Amino acid sequence: MDFENADVLIVSASIVGILFSYWQYSIIAKTTISPEPDTETSSLVALNRKVTANLYEVYIAISEGANTFLNAEYRICGVFVTGFSILLFVLISSATSIEDGMFTTISFITGALTSMLAGYIGMKVAVFSNARTTKAAALNASNESAQYTAAFNMAFRAGGCMGFCLCSIGLLVLWILLKIFSHYFETDDYDLMMDCISGYGLGGSCIAMFGRVGGGIYTKAADVGADLVGKCDLGIPEDDPRNPATIADNVGDNVGDVAGMSSDLFGSFAESTCAALVIAASAQDMRDAGWSALLFPVTISAAGIIICMLSSFVATHIHPVKSKAEVEPALKLQLILTSILTIFASVFLAFWLLPAEFTLNGVAQSSFTATPGNVAICVCAGCFGGLLIGLVTEYYTSHSYAPVREVAMSCKAGGAATNIIYGLALGYLSAIIPVIILAVIIFTSFTLCDTYGVGLAAIGMLSTLATGLTIDGYGPVCDNAGGIAEMSEMEEEVRDCTDALDAAGNTTAAIGKGFAIGSAALVSLALYGAFVVRLGIDTGVNVLEPLTFSFLLLGAMLPYWFSAMTMKSVGEAAGAMVTEVKEQFANDSRLMAGTAPKDVVAAGRDKCIKISTEASLREMVAPSALVMLAPLIAGTFFGVYAVFGLLTGGLVSGVQLAISMSNTGGAWDNAKKYIEQKLSDDPELKKGKGTDVHKAAVVGDTVGDPLKDTSGPALNILMKLMAILSLVFADFFWSINDGRGLLNVAVAVSRRV
Amino acid sequence: MDFENADVLIVSASIVGILFSYWQYSIIAKTTISPEPDTETSSLVALNRKVTANLYEVYIAISEGANTFLNAEYRICGVFVTGFSILLFVLISSATSIEDGMFTTISFITGALTSMLAGYIGMKVAVFSNARTTKAAALNASNESAQYTAAFNMAFRAGGCMGFCLCSIGLLVLWILLKIFSHYFETDDYDLMMDCISGYGLGGSCIAMFGRVGGGIYTKAADVGADLVGKCDLGIPEDDPRNPATIADNVGDNVGDVAGMSSDLFGSFAESTCAALVIAASAQDMRDAGWSALLFPVTISAAGIIICMLSSFVATHIHPVKSKAEVEPALKLQLILTSILTIFASVFLAFWLLPAEFTLNGVAQSSFTATPGNVAICVCAGCFGGLLIGLVTEYYTSHSYAPVREVAMSCKAGGAATNIIYGLALGYLSAIIPVIILAVIIFTSFTLCDTYGVGLAAIGMLSTLATGLTIDGYGPVCDNAGGIAEMSEMEEEVRDCTDALDAAGNTTAAIGKGFAIGSAALVSLALYGAFVVRLGIDTGVNVLEPLTFSFLLLGAMLPYWFSAMTMKSVGEAAGAMVTEVKEQFANDSRLMAGTAPKDVVAAGRDKCIKISTEASLREMVAPSALVMLAPLIAGTFFGVYAVFGLLTGGLVSGVQLAISMSNTGGAWDNAKKYIEQKLSDDPELKKGKGTDVHKAAVVGDTVGDPLKDTSGPALNILMKLMAILSLVFADFFWSINDGRGLLNVAVAVSRRV
Repeated sequence: MDFENADVLIVSASIVGILFSYWQYSIIAKTTISPEPDTETSSLVALNRKVTANLYEVYIAISEGANTFLNAEYRICGVFVTGFSILLFVLISSATSIEDGMFTTISFITGALTSMLAGYIGMKVAVFSNARTTKAAALNASNESAQYTAAFNMAFRAGGCMGFCLCSIGLLVLWILLKIFSHYFETDDYDLMMDCISGYGLGGSCIAMFGRVGGGIYTKAADVGADLVGKCDLGIPEDDPRNPATIADNVGDNVGDVAGMSSDLFGSFAESTCAALVIAASAQDMRDAGWSALLFPVTISAAGIIICMLSSFVATHIHPVKSKAEVEPALKLQLILTSILTIFASVFLAFWLLPAEFTLNGVAQSSFTATPGNVAICVCAGCFGGLLIGLVTEYYTSHSYAPVREVAMSCKAGGAATNIIYGLALGYLSAIIPVIILAVIIFTSFTLCDTYGVGLAAIGMLSTLATGLTIDGYGPVCDNAGGIAEMSEMEEEVRDCTDALDAAGNTTAAIGKGFAIGSAALVSLALYGAFVVRLGIDTGVNVLEPLTFSFLLLGAMLPYWFSAMTMKSVGEAAGAMVTEVKEQFANDSRLMAGTAPKDVVAAGRDKCIKISTEASLREMVAPSALVMLAPLIAGTFFGVYAVFGLLTGGLVSGVQLAISMSNTGGAWDNAKKYIEQKLSDDPELKKGKGTDVHKAAVVGDTVGDPLKDTSGPALNILMKLMAILSLVFADFFWSINDGRGLLNVAVAVSRRV
Repeated sequence: MDFENADVLIVSASIVGILFSYWQYSIIAKTTISPEPDTETSSLVALNRKVTANLYEVYIAISEGANTFLNAEYRICGVFVTGFSILLFVLISSATSIEDGMFTTISFITGALTSMLAGYIGMKVAVFSNARTTKAAALNASNESAQYTAAFNMAFRAGGCMGFCLCSIGLLVLWILLKIFSHYFETDDYDLMMDCISGYGLGGSCIAMFGRVGGGIYTKAADVGADLVGKCDLGIPEDDPRNPATIADNVGDNVGDVAGMSSDLFGSFAESTCAALVIAASAQDMRDAGWSALLFPVTISAAGIIICMLSSFVATHIHPVKSKAEVEPALKLQLILTSILTIFASVFLAFWLLPAEFTLNGVAQSSFTATPGNVAICVCAGCFGGLLIGLVTEYYTSHSYAPVREVAMSCKAGGAATNIIYGLALGYLSAIIPVIILAVIIFTSFTLCDTYGVGLAAIGMLSTLATGLTIDGYGPVCDNAGGIAEMSEMEEEVRDCTDALDAAGNTTAAIGKGFAIGSAALVSLALYGAFVVRLGIDTGVNVLEPLTFSFLLLGAMLPYWFSAMTMKSVGEAAGAMVTEVKEQFANDSRLMAGTAPKDVVAAGRDKCIKISTEASLREMVAPSALVMLAPLIAGTFFGVYAVFGLLTGGLVSGVQLAISMSNTGGAWDNAKKYIEQKLSDDPELKKGKGTDVHKAAVVGDTVGDPLKDTSGPALNILMKLMAILSLVFADFFWSINDGRGLLNVAVAVSRRV
């Protein structure tokens, strides 16, 4: 087997990443969680016998709940992957050859399994680290600066352990797949090979869809249910150990925010790489330029791992976090640092690996000439655009800035109603600048390198993925750590520390969502372009065809339909949760008094976990089916011109909706926190919890939950999944009446083309 | 002057319509409103001296408030029209010829003035009739069946008076313009003439934008403000005479719901006709076919007036309304009847006026052959599609059906938060079927007659406009009549009758909004097509051009930006209203006791009117400027390929958002009514006003107000206005670097085209 430059870089980056991840894990594992107090710490009030026992109990309960859900979800995924693999194999084989069908199916299964592994590792690491973060905060409760350093580092390492592991495994598996496939294909057939490789992205995306929707419904059903019943009806605080729905809420953070998001971002990585590879390999020039040039997009991701690793030392070693105020800047610095380093890396790699000039296929122009300089600009545009989108998202969702404060103030003027009006308006407004940035990135990269450029911009935006995942993983770990502190009945100081860490996590989570949406838009466009290139249509996509325009409208409607389904699912499951908890309290007065025996409490918690698990698994099927069936039905019956409309519409409408939903939800959450933490100078806002103003803010927060954590993020996958499905099934669609579908209604098209 | 078949039909229909309208007016005017009781009725308890004086006073206050606002608004419109006329004249003249510039400007001014007249007449008739409807209900309070007949007929005639007057005047003015222009153009230059005529649509649309946004902010600032302060803080019922904001609320119904909507629908009529005329006249075949064939689209509207008039006798004479239950069916029957009659009319007119076969220009195909049969199908598709969209809208917004009841039930499960989640989800879901219907209409008409077909479908959907306006006008008149009854301190029976009439009006208003959105989508697409035909681009619009795709994203963002602006404006103005009312009550305890002298009450009311007026006029500028500047900037600096993206994006995203906003708002309103009227079997929902469930429903209703009456309906105009602006400025855009704009960045385009 030949090892070329690109191979060396990719393999070494993957191995280094995995080793780094293991190192992080070994540091976390030094802190132990056991039912008995550690001899050395038993003297500490913060970790006396009772608290330690509580901590262990909660830790085990969350861990078991998360395992149960993920096992159940993955059983469904297993059935789906088996069924879909057969379908894929039959359809692709019938349209092309048995070999192509087989290779595509292998890629699909590999992608799906890798994505499941990614979700599983993410969940395991998060569950493993959350109680340890609580313990770190408790052990150092006497010294605030040491406490922040210890707890922050623990949560940050947990994020890092997860982020680097996922990125490295994703990269390594893809590379192994490429390397194996390359033995079965001639260099001149690398275009066919890459078509098969795109199955890898499809597999990742399908699992991500289940993870995001299922996990999203799980976490928000529990969260909304716990909030409604706890705060509004029974008047017990958030994460109170008496509320049986809180364990489900904590489990939800791990399976929704961590496992779901891990699969989602793994999907983006896999798909953007596949899109770029398909387009690159479709050009003779690129195939001739050699393996390393072809694998250039993958090397960017490899370089990203090294860059992110180097940057992470700044947070843990060079400039450790010592106080509340340092948390958010430390996390933001990570993103800025990795983005700057990526410029150098991309320029270097482009000039090192790519020929001085090469011709590629595209959609805006059927063929065009690119240079390493152009290519590097595309990567940097994506990378910096992502950073800017992230910072704008922060502006609109952090309570340090005017927009969220205005929303908080509106709770005072007209209560819940004006809070909702202002929050919705904020979400709409927050889409303006990100969309402009996306438009500029697309214009730049599309003009310079056509679809290939858009794919590279997506890869550029995701080059800092390991850091992004670190930060994204950090948030739920801190959130959980806080919940665990509350439920273990630890002292105020512990909770204060985890709350501050969590607040910073909320803001950076919003930044992460901005990245996820932005990259999803770019990935979808790149895949869409690859789909058109693949079909060999060089007249572009005319939207003013009857069929295309009709499906453009239908495509734009899909994100609304999808969101409505997921929102209602959360509403219904939360309703069931409220009924269950109310019933438990009504039937056993010891629960409210906090004197119920352990087994009664545990049985109550298990019932809540069961409601979330069953509801989410039941409700995730319909929205996922909608997204997968839409392009398949359009392509099979109405042909590729209908699919063009569907993809355009879904992408255009999905981006706006996803951004506004995520930011609206984030803003409401932080407006509530702004009031709770009494950060305002306004006398009425300063009164904190329990006031009418606070109640109005809670309504917004509750409405925002399904928007920001269920519907919004899942829209990313909607866009990407529809596009990659179309790409993988391109040959099949084309085999039906030359892409005109079984119904063959593309009248006008048939006359012109 | 030759009078051809089409001329005869158009002129006679217009005159018949105006006479019919005058006849309706004369019947309404028989009921008089004066400060002294009529001798014949002074014996009635319902209209004793005190009530009569109250009635008169409220009538005058509303009338003056509405006049003040409309005068102020029209002063701003006057300045705008003057300024924009100069700009238009200069830009069009510079791009084409002084003559073209002059004719376009004349058309623009005529359209603007006609639209202002339409709004003015609508407002005048509504204000004239509302107190008379209250009086009709009061005069017959002793006999329920006679009461319903009298009050319904009064409100229905008011709607008819307005609807027929507007349609006839709009038609007649357009015809006169066409006839005059035809003297200055050769038959072969009719394409240029129609280009100039499109200024008529632009004028109508610009005024409609101001009317919808200004009126929408006015009415909802007052409504939301009155609701918030009345229901939530001071605990006084809706429309209570003590609440100084209620008069402003009533004025708002007239200037927003009536004047705004009249201008909006007049704009749709003018624009759809212009789009069809531009496309028809661009083909040599059609110009050769003669004046009547060319004017075929206008004759459909003319026939519509006659059809609507005939149908209206069914409601007033053949089958008069005698009870609560008969109101809604009577109004729906009108729509169904006119739609059926339109089929016959359109088939007849198509075969009578059009040649057996003719060739037109298009965008999906550069030229195609059409037949009268095809043309009739397009008209019918629009007409029936509109009816279906209306009925689906009714299903989602009426509390007779499951969706609204589910939203009402959700108030019980989790309070305001779940109400909002379910309401938003309902709005998203309610877009599915209308969008599918629109897609089918577009596919059918686009395939059969290309852009001309889409224009005809829009005209078909608007052929029942007189009936639509009748029903749309009916609603606010009943709403006002109820408010007046409450404020004049009339008996329960009077209010019960007007409430029942109003509830039916709410549902049919939702139907009307469905029509308005559907037709706006078709009109925009037709105008967009006409724009492309006009530019002579026969390669279609490739969305996968960098510039076009970037602007596609930006265009899709505009409706969100626009909505955010208008929603925040309502929120702020409502906040100011709340502050003012609270202050008034705090400063003068006699206001709450109801013992304040008349002049104090009147001064308080005037202050509220002033707040609404000033806020709406101030806040309407920015959103209107956004919509007008976007296509102008895009076209001037980035060229027509950017405008293509902008129009596609705005249309696609606007339709979804407009439908979901309108229906969400309507559903919340009716969910609240469902609880208030105790229509549910559920014990908790049955308790009516004052419960926590009802409070949760009020939050939804308040959030829905700006969505359904400010942002949602204004989005229709956003779509249409951007498209007609582009059409009118087509030559100007093309004159800059052959349509590539001042910045000339359309790199890829320039290489291919």
